[in-house]
Amino acid sequence: MSKLRVTVWNENLHETRFQEIRDIYPEGIHGCVAGFLKDAGMEVSTATLAEEEHGLTQERLDNTDVLVWWGHMAHNDVQDEIVERVYRRVMQGMGLVVLHSGHASKIFRKLTGSDSELLRWREVGEKEILWVMNPAHPIVQGLPDHFILEHEEMYGETFIIPRPDEVVFVSWFEGGEVFRSGLTYTRGLGKIFYFRPGHEAFPTFFNENVQKVIINAVNWAKPGAAMPKVTLGEIKNPIMPIKDAKENTLAQLNVYKDEE
Amino acid sequence: MSKLRVTVWNENLHETRFQEIRDIYPEGIHGCVAGFLKDAGMEVSTATLAEEEHGLTQERLDNTDVLVWWGHMAHNDVQDEIVERVYRRVMQGMGLVVLHSGHASKIFRKLTGSDSELLRWREVGEKEILWVMNPAHPIVQGLPDHFILEHEEMYGETFIIPRPDEVVFVSWFEGGEVFRSGLTYTRGLGKIFYFRPGHEAFPTFFNENVQKVIINAVNWAKPGAAMPKVTLGEIKNPIMPIKDAKENTLAQLNVYKDEE
Amino acid sequence: MSKLRVTVWNENLHETRFQEIRDIYPEGIHGCVAGFLKDAGMEVSTATLAEEEHGLTQERLDNTDVLVWWGHMAHNDVQDEIVERVYRRVMQGMGLVVLHSGHASKIFRKLTGSDSELLRWREVGEKEILWVMNPAHPIVQGLPDHFILEHEEMYGETFIIPRPDEVVFVSWFEGGEVFRSGLTYTRGLGKIFYFRPGHEAFPTFFNENVQKVIINAVNWAKPGAAMPKVTLGEIKNPIMPIKDAKENTLAQLNVYKDEE
Amino acid sequence: MSKLRVTVWNENLHETRFQEIRDIYPEGIHGCVAGFLKDAGMEVSTATLAEEEHGLTQERLDNTDVLVWWGHMAHNDVQDEIVERVYRRVMQGMGLVVLHSGHASKIFRKLTGSDSELLRWREVGEKEILWVMNPAHPIVQGLPDHFILEHEEMYGETFIIPRPDEVVFVSWFEGGEVFRSGLTYTRGLGKIFYFRPGHEAFPTFFNENVQKVIINAVNWAKPGAAMPKVTLGEIKNPIMPIKDAKENTLAQLNVYKDEE
Repeated sequence: MSKLRVTVWNENLHETRFQEIRDIYPEGIHGCVAGFLKDAGMEVSTATLAEEEHGLTQERLDNTDVLVWWGHMAHNDVQDEIVERVYRRVMQGMGLVVLHSGHASKIFRKLTGSDSELLRWREVGEKEILWVMNPAHPIVQGLPDHFILEHEEMYGETFIIPRPDEVVFVSWFEGGEVFRSGLTYTRGLGKIFYFRPGHEAFPTFFNENVQKVIINAVNWAKPGAAMPKVTLGEIKNPIMPIKDAKENTLAQLNVYKDEE
Repeated sequence: MSKLRVTVWNENLHETRFQEIRDIYPEGIHGCVAGFLKDAGMEVSTATLAEEEHGLTQERLDNTDVLVWWGHMAHNDVQDEIVERVYRRVMQGMGLVVLHSGHASKIFRKLTGSDSELLRWREVGEKEILWVMNPAHPIVQGLPDHFILEHEEMYGETFIIPRPDEVVFVSWFEGGEVFRSGLTYTRGLGKIFYFRPGHEAFPTFFNENVQKVIINAVNWAKPGAAMPKVTLGEIKNPIMPIKDAKENTLAQLNVYKDEE
Repeated sequence: MSKLRVTVWNENLHETRFQEIRDIYPEGIHGCVAGFLKDAGMEVSTATLAEEEHGLTQERLDNTDVLVWWGHMAHNDVQDEIVERVYRRVMQGMGLVVLHSGHASKIFRKLTGSDSELLRWREVGEKEILWVMNPAHPIVQGLPDHFILEHEEMYGETFIIPRPDEVVFVSWFEGGEVFRSGLTYTRGLGKIFYFRPGHEAFPTFFNENVQKVIINAVNWAKPGAAMPKVTLGEIKNPIMPIKDAKENTLAQLNVYKDEE
Repeated sequence: MSKLRVTVWNENLHETRFQEIRDIYPEGIHGCVAGFLKDAGMEVSTATLAEEEHGLTQERLDNTDVLVWWGHMAHNDVQDEIVERVYRRVMQGMGLVVLHSGHASKIFRKLTGSDSELLRWREVGEKEILWVMNPAHPIVQGLPDHFILEHEEMYGETFIIPRPDEVVFVSWFEGGEVFRSGLTYTRGLGKIFYFRPGHEAFPTFFNENVQKVIINAVNWAKPGAAMPKVTLGEIKNPIMPIKDAKENTLAQLNVYKDEE
């Protein structure tokens, strides 16, 4: 079986601008994530905001099975054209794993169709405990039923998102909030997983359980091995005979067609 | 109890351009739909594409509990600014009932976050049978367990939409296709119902069962009577005390803030 | 409009056996719940374990729109015949609101089809904070986006239940756990709401927000006003003509029929 | 990787009693299904109603990853004790694929918690067309977007089942009905797939697409590779310190405990 082809996209601004963040992620968050995905046997490349076309050329996306997305400060600097390109690939079946503040990215907001940038937040580095909702889900295999992150940014409900296909994790925060922290969606033919943790000021992506979640999620989100070719558009010949068609409709349709 | 305030929006192009369609809907599709909603005791107004701001001023939308949408030929002529305005009202809780080819409208595509314009279709006026999936759903009260439309346009699966909150109807078509014909979604605080039938070349909106569905759907989609005021954004004061905050995070955050 | 007919069922053992509990609920938990439902304009009666047929005669159930259930110590003392009777009424459309330790009752386990008695628990009277997941849901109207119960029993995930139709509340517990505290299900034609709080040793049912939730839930769970009459069983005459039936099948079927 | 261990259970009454059915399935439906699952690389055994403990000893079930179930005439002859045993294994994570009239089996009804035996049906051998709802679902990989069964028994909506986790197929029937034909559920830790086709009087299980669906479904339903060990029951030591416990509660609890 050929290797899963993963592209890890990162804004890569905090790491380049602040020594404190660089101390935590010397190779950038993308470097850290790409590292443990490679170790899991995947074929991984990275892309960042500063690269031409943000590193997400059509060719690159056409050769990506699953895209991982981390962004925070500069959502608005991502070009609409690239967002549209990523969107089209998700519609075609590319998987997408959105991390942490990626909930407010253009691509996630476009895919959810909701104000998913809206939630409570607090950045004091409090304790977070993630709880597994469904132990049978592929994304939680190999994890304990809960795990602790000593210091994280808080995200709290109410989170303005569409009802997910499935809630995989719910987080507890020391300050009294809860959050649906692992969410699956399907859009077009693409599978999407949103995972809450991963604030840049903490070494979250070095946490072994976080790494397991992301490895599992990438595997889960990969496109189907042999998706049905779906026929869309006008189907002139019905499968079954139609007895009492209103023919004048068809004629009329042609008028519209010429006009359009 | 004050009356439900409904706005029925219609493209109103087929009715004005083609005598055959005007013969079916002399007052336009919007006039027909507004009529039976008024008879059901609602406060109803209409709006069309040709009006200034498509008849959907901010004031009008601010005074609309549920918006009904019919469009077909001219989805692209709807201004993005108006789409954005409708979207914002749905986020705030305005209900939206999307009819027939409205599945391909800008507003429905923006809200679903998927290629919901994609499906099979055939316009020969074949027979459609709609089946109720959940007899307990508010939208099917007063209906039989199935009803027949003698002539309709066919829409067939695979329909490229996100998993709905609930599938209320599934349609059978004479030519061999099926379609998820009644779908509920939640986006932001707004409830959305998509209902498939309603091709302009057939008197579908005069069908008593179709009218019941739309009346029920408008009632179902109305905003909550007393929605919780949701607190969003930064919450500096936690509900519960936090013992071991990583203070340097906060400091760092201020640096970003200045820069942004 | 005629009043909603509600029956509040309570095991009524803690209240009769322990003075400490009687001090909290002098009229029993059923008396307390019935009281605020009456104040909300409903027609309410109560029933308890010790009554003949546990107070749930067929006639009583036939005249109940929504049944509220509280049980804890004595789930196994509820007769199977009565459980089956309640089950049949839920299938026909009676609403069911299951409170607190009712998650482990025979009727809830039968309806969920899962080990819903399984969860973490701790009974030290810790703080619980309930968070609203969907502000547009009928059950949360009139509530704040979160509310606090100073002392409650803890229930924690992983809760072994089927995926709910919707998660309405998630609870935060002081000891570090979270719990899906408000769950909707549909079974047959009946709507079901499970609500977590309500340990007998605390005055939870006197809490104004808890009362609002239960009032809203009873209203939400009531049967549809005019449910479609569903035709079930053998349908000899198809709606549409069938051209190429395999007649020998029918003949064979008759053989089975005789034998059965 | 070790082979998937599958047990195919069949009532095996039609095949033994009627020459016409034996002509179609000379090795029984279980023999046919076991055959193509073996060809797909699985380790397959069979079990039938007539065997001691219906062939479903505890040891057999403990060594089964996925159980396939076909029954029709004799649902009531399956012993409750065996049903309970199968149920317990599903709770623990064993997958279950329920075929055709297995919707009315004791085990499926117990797991759904609903009147899932109720639906419309007609046995004239009419045409069925199955449509894929989600091309990205693992169960439809390698299929076309629809496929035709020339002669099948009809099952029609309204089907009295709980809302499924996902609807994978919807069927069209020549006589005018539709049916949700491929349904996924989760119960306990077990994954369940219901697949509609498979009437004994037709060679449905020799259909290549039907075989693909069942092979895919068995693969999909297998238990997680490394499910989190879930801690259930009383948790005396909280993860986080609790400050203001109501100690008298604990004391009281002990009283109950002694009494129970």
